[in-house]
Amino acid sequence: MSSTESVRQDILEMEGYVSGEQPAAGKYIKLNTNENPFPPSNKVVDAIHDAASIGLNIYPDAVSNSFRLAASQSLSNPTFSIQPENILCGNGSDDILTILTRTFVSPGDFIRIPYPSYVLYKTLAAIQGATTEEIQFNDNWTLPDSFSANDQKLSLAFLPNPNSPSGTTIPNETLGKLASQLDCPLVIDEAYVDFAESNALELVQTHDNVIVTRTLSKSYGLAGLRFGFCVAHASIIEQMLKVKDSYNCDALSIAGATAAICDSRWLDDNRSKIKELRSELDSELQRMGFQTTPSQANFVWCRHPDHDSKTIYEKLKQNHILIRYMDYPDWGDGLRISVGTANQISALVTILESIIGG
Amino acid sequence: MSSTESVRQDILEMEGYVSGEQPAAGKYIKLNTNENPFPPSNKVVDAIHDAASIGLNIYPDAVSNSFRLAASQSLSNPTFSIQPENILCGNGSDDILTILTRTFVSPGDFIRIPYPSYVLYKTLAAIQGATTEEIQFNDNWTLPDSFSANDQKLSLAFLPNPNSPSGTTIPNETLGKLASQLDCPLVIDEAYVDFAESNALELVQTHDNVIVTRTLSKSYGLAGLRFGFCVAHASIIEQMLKVKDSYNCDALSIAGATAAICDSRWLDDNRSKIKELRSELDSELQRMGFQTTPSQANFVWCRHPDHDSKTIYEKLKQNHILIRYMDYPDWGDGLRISVGTANQISALVTILESIIGG
Repeated sequence: MSSTESVRQDILEMEGYVSGEQPAAGKYIKLNTNENPFPPSNKVVDAIHDAASIGLNIYPDAVSNSFRLAASQSLSNPTFSIQPENILCGNGSDDILTILTRTFVSPGDFIRIPYPSYVLYKTLAAIQGATTEEIQFNDNWTLPDSFSANDQKLSLAFLPNPNSPSGTTIPNETLGKLASQLDCPLVIDEAYVDFAESNALELVQTHDNVIVTRTLSKSYGLAGLRFGFCVAHASIIEQMLKVKDSYNCDALSIAGATAAICDSRWLDDNRSKIKELRSELDSELQRMGFQTTPSQANFVWCRHPDHDSKTIYEKLKQNHILIRYMDYPDWGDGLRISVGTANQISALVTILESIIGG
Repeated sequence: MSSTESVRQDILEMEGYVSGEQPAAGKYIKLNTNENPFPPSNKVVDAIHDAASIGLNIYPDAVSNSFRLAASQSLSNPTFSIQPENILCGNGSDDILTILTRTFVSPGDFIRIPYPSYVLYKTLAAIQGATTEEIQFNDNWTLPDSFSANDQKLSLAFLPNPNSPSGTTIPNETLGKLASQLDCPLVIDEAYVDFAESNALELVQTHDNVIVTRTLSKSYGLAGLRFGFCVAHASIIEQMLKVKDSYNCDALSIAGATAAICDSRWLDDNRSKIKELRSELDSELQRMGFQTTPSQANFVWCRHPDHDSKTIYEKLKQNHILIRYMDYPDWGDGLRISVGTANQISALVTILESIIGG
């Protein structure tokens, strides 16, 4: 037989997901994949060092209980309570999104996502033999009513909030209405929520079909660690546990993630810095004539009325600065720029000025 | 809606995979999940320490190139050559087995596995909406001809070699014949192969449909790290890359795994020790009247003609020693005992003597 003759047709026909460029370390200023420009808390590094020195020959805790306990305490507040059994941990939130798709989406079903948004959801649907319905955002980044229309084949709705590439958010009141109207689970992907003004965790208590996903890649500066989780009704977590790989989180990431979620002081400090830098980035872009979208995430979406976005991206790359050029068919293109350090932003501005000026 | 109303029927109906018990550290002598009783190489721990101290805020290399390069050099030999593009890395070999199932198995298909063998394959098929055909080993642990029969709905055959729970192996000549006869990929799961006398890597060059899977959990003492990989024709790896999560291996496990595969002296030393201890465990069990199966893995499969296996397991557990009791419907039960340190084996023997004697 030829080696790929047995590959599923769905897989043969699909293109793989392409994430932002990841060049060799140190050659570029990386403002293209929304990483945190600051290193994680020292407590995380210490916890990893300790875990590496003992017991790596033993399987890790299959459900990351130390993290579940710490997260349930850290995320609960006086108005709502999250229990460890409401939490499922994953090898990055990618793993959580994959588990969700495999738990809820049958081949032939479709998932619903907003447009333009995070492209990975489409890949997850395709791998599962399902299709995707994209509902275009209104001009002001609100969602049209069609996002909550039901259909027997609709098995999951993904809503990144804050959204990428726009950095915009849908308020909890609207999210609650959406969840009430939808007959399928509503996954609120809160990858960037720590940089926003509010989050949707309280909706998990009031709506059985709300699933909130989180990652430690962005606000905790731990993209290299691969740790994410979701918060949902315990009966949903129970089903998802059947689908996840037996030991999907390793001993080092469990130790690091647990230390991270306990260090609320580091998180508060980091997000203040990022928000301040985001405001600086936005002001500088506006000063140069860019049209920016007010962002609740750690990136800014922008276009320049007189300059082609792709050309700007390419010229920046020639100057060793990577940002993300996005081109959405039937919608338009633009630039998504991650919030960097003050030095990175100032290097970006210098090069941008020479591009815009020339 | 009720919270689990939308869960796929396949998932609702299945039971989750149950792995060996993982009690809190230190309370038991663990001889139940085939972990390596020795800690990993110091070079692995050093590499993890270094990786934790730099760059965790940045996404890891999406395809673990440093490992692929090191492994291609370490696994090649004068008679055959493995290139980096023949290797796919995963979050444990569980991740690889999941990716394989999702790449090749459509809902309604079936997979073939030997019996009794590793139970996880059945769970993977069920999650994918597929079924499993179990072909019973002959009494001497060879495979009947029916293992190579073709069927349009047969999309993957899994063959653990060495097998668990028996620790027995099928020789390469037979594996090559099987691969030639099968119209689907033959996955040779070599989780335990470093404790055996030979491996099937050479078959990847001669048979387009042979996929060899490996883990660092057993012979490298890294069950806590979650790192596995497979070796196959480059065109197969290319399709599997579309199915894996974007960043399925984290920066720490890539660093640790790369250091591990480069440290061939540690591996040689460790497997000599394990083989010697395996021989000691086997002799002691025979001395006490157990019937053992000659093992090429890091565990021994045994039964005692005069004593109930389940009772032995339970009495050992009462004495803080965990081994694995396996009961295979329509086949029989027995005990799978992982090779421990000399002290662990001697503690086991002492308790077993009191059980058998009493």
